[in-house]
Amino acid sequence: MSALPREFALIERYFRPLAGPAALGLADDVAVLRPPPGTDLVLSADAMVAGVHFLPADPPDLVARKLLRVNLSDLAGKGAAPLGYLLTIAAPSRTEDAWFEAFAAGLALDQEQFGVSLMGGDTSATPGPFSLSLTILGTVAPGRAVLRRGAAAGHGVFVSGTIGDAALGLEVLQGHLTDPSGLLARRYRLPEPRLGFPLAEFAAAAMDVSDGLVQDLGHLCRAGGVAAEIDAAAVPLSAPALAAGPAWLARCLTGGDDYELLLAVPPGAEDRLAAATARLAVPLTRIGRFVPGPPEVRVIAPEGAPMTFSRPGWSHF
Amino acid sequence: MSALPREFALIERYFRPLAGPAALGLADDVAVLRPPPGTDLVLSADAMVAGVHFLPADPPDLVARKLLRVNLSDLAGKGAAPLGYLLTIAAPSRTEDAWFEAFAAGLALDQEQFGVSLMGGDTSATPGPFSLSLTILGTVAPGRAVLRRGAAAGHGVFVSGTIGDAALGLEVLQGHLTDPSGLLARRYRLPEPRLGFPLAEFAAAAMDVSDGLVQDLGHLCRAGGVAAEIDAAAVPLSAPALAAGPAWLARCLTGGDDYELLLAVPPGAEDRLAAATARLAVPLTRIGRFVPGPPEVRVIAPEGAPMTFSRPGWSHF
Repeated sequence: MSALPREFALIERYFRPLAGPAALGLADDVAVLRPPPGTDLVLSADAMVAGVHFLPADPPDLVARKLLRVNLSDLAGKGAAPLGYLLTIAAPSRTEDAWFEAFAAGLALDQEQFGVSLMGGDTSATPGPFSLSLTILGTVAPGRAVLRRGAAAGHGVFVSGTIGDAALGLEVLQGHLTDPSGLLARRYRLPEPRLGFPLAEFAAAAMDVSDGLVQDLGHLCRAGGVAAEIDAAAVPLSAPALAAGPAWLARCLTGGDDYELLLAVPPGAEDRLAAATARLAVPLTRIGRFVPGPPEVRVIAPEGAPMTFSRPGWSHF
Repeated sequence: MSALPREFALIERYFRPLAGPAALGLADDVAVLRPPPGTDLVLSADAMVAGVHFLPADPPDLVARKLLRVNLSDLAGKGAAPLGYLLTIAAPSRTEDAWFEAFAAGLALDQEQFGVSLMGGDTSATPGPFSLSLTILGTVAPGRAVLRRGAAAGHGVFVSGTIGDAALGLEVLQGHLTDPSGLLARRYRLPEPRLGFPLAEFAAAAMDVSDGLVQDLGHLCRAGGVAAEIDAAAVPLSAPALAAGPAWLARCLTGGDDYELLLAVPPGAEDRLAAATARLAVPLTRIGRFVPGPPEVRVIAPEGAPMTFSRPGWSHF
């Protein structure tokens, strides 16, 4: 029998070791999965394109981990637990094996950290830049996925972690800002999906912040038919973001790639939130409130005046 | 609130009408799906890149339908029924709305025909050519997905429909062959996924033929640890493929894009196959047999000599 094309050698060598039980050793065209009984499946798909979402020269292991993590973050924003993923890779034909090796090594690291495995996918060539697409599957107790809709006037606006680090990290990588700590660039390159928060216990609406806090909060407002006010002074910033100074505040509030949680929490649920998250390493912080009115996000500057933005967030198109 | 980026307008206008119940109106980051109780999920992901899998000038509705159909064909090859799909689109930034409109119209047509709906996805820009990725979900009764492994010596090799039309259709589109009937080009552009065959009732191993009959039969051989012999004269050819003449036979046996079923059928199951498929419009044809020996595909030419091929099938890489 003739030698198989390179595609099969790449799958065999670099991707089969990542395959979980549903993947049938990547030796079939499909994955077969018996869903855990009594759960809802949560699914999401996000793509990353070289030159748009990452730079062609970025380390392949970090590109792989970011691709997996931005999808894991979609699950985290619903309170779901990850199960597995499918991956399609369109790679320039001249791509060396070392790129695939490093890419797979990054996936292996994060598979271990987040308890997921590869279920299937597809590798092909492209005359263009790398174009990667990942579909993630997760599970949540029936009816317990926390959706974007559900925010109502009187609910608090909460976020996890710190906001704006990744947007400033991109500025650091582009040479517009310095950060001796390295935290900002690391937050841009390697987001931390906030899995493990029992969101259904205390959140009426939730999503992850991926395209900028102001723009994404606008999505919660539209889905709930409600307005929101943020106190800029209450938005948690990291030490390097604070050190960058107030000139960068607007960038923090509208820049993309935070991958933090954004929640609507009814007043009666704030105690449950505190109890449920006391032992978690990442804090949830109240940064504002939902108020009656047409869908709109108002940001109050630290000195009390309304802030305006040239654009509320990031668009990939 | 500022106007939302174009990405959101495209989703709202062209893709929301395609969304099924699990998609939450494409207004969330995720789809939430309660799997039908007592079923296995079957998942597959395939990508299509302009310049590799289709031509940039191809009609967008046909590109969309082919993308959906090649994934549906993966389900068909396991005997699974389609449920829904997630889609990521990386499009050149200059892409006009009309492209998305036609693309979505093609999906709408095939959603109706095949009973599936859009569950989620992602749209972004690319500095390169169109790069499309689709993840399909289907269901099958527990343990009844027919896998690639399972072929054994003595089983018959069966295929559905006719073989080689799409490969010749590409030759027609490239001006190397004429076909007044138009069938060959149509078979290249718009495959027919062979859904609805109750494969588990009679097939020990199955897959769809997407990369060339000889190469794909090699996959069944490797998965089963067995060899196979094909009688080239028994391989069903369409009237236009027969009219092309014997010089094109090798191309038919090794060209890609058939999207027909390829099955291993135990001798005792041939009656069940005949009974189960008698009322289906597409015939299954016995084209050879699995025989003892190391994984290998031998093709016997119509005049009785072994055929050899410069390459056994198609590679996308």
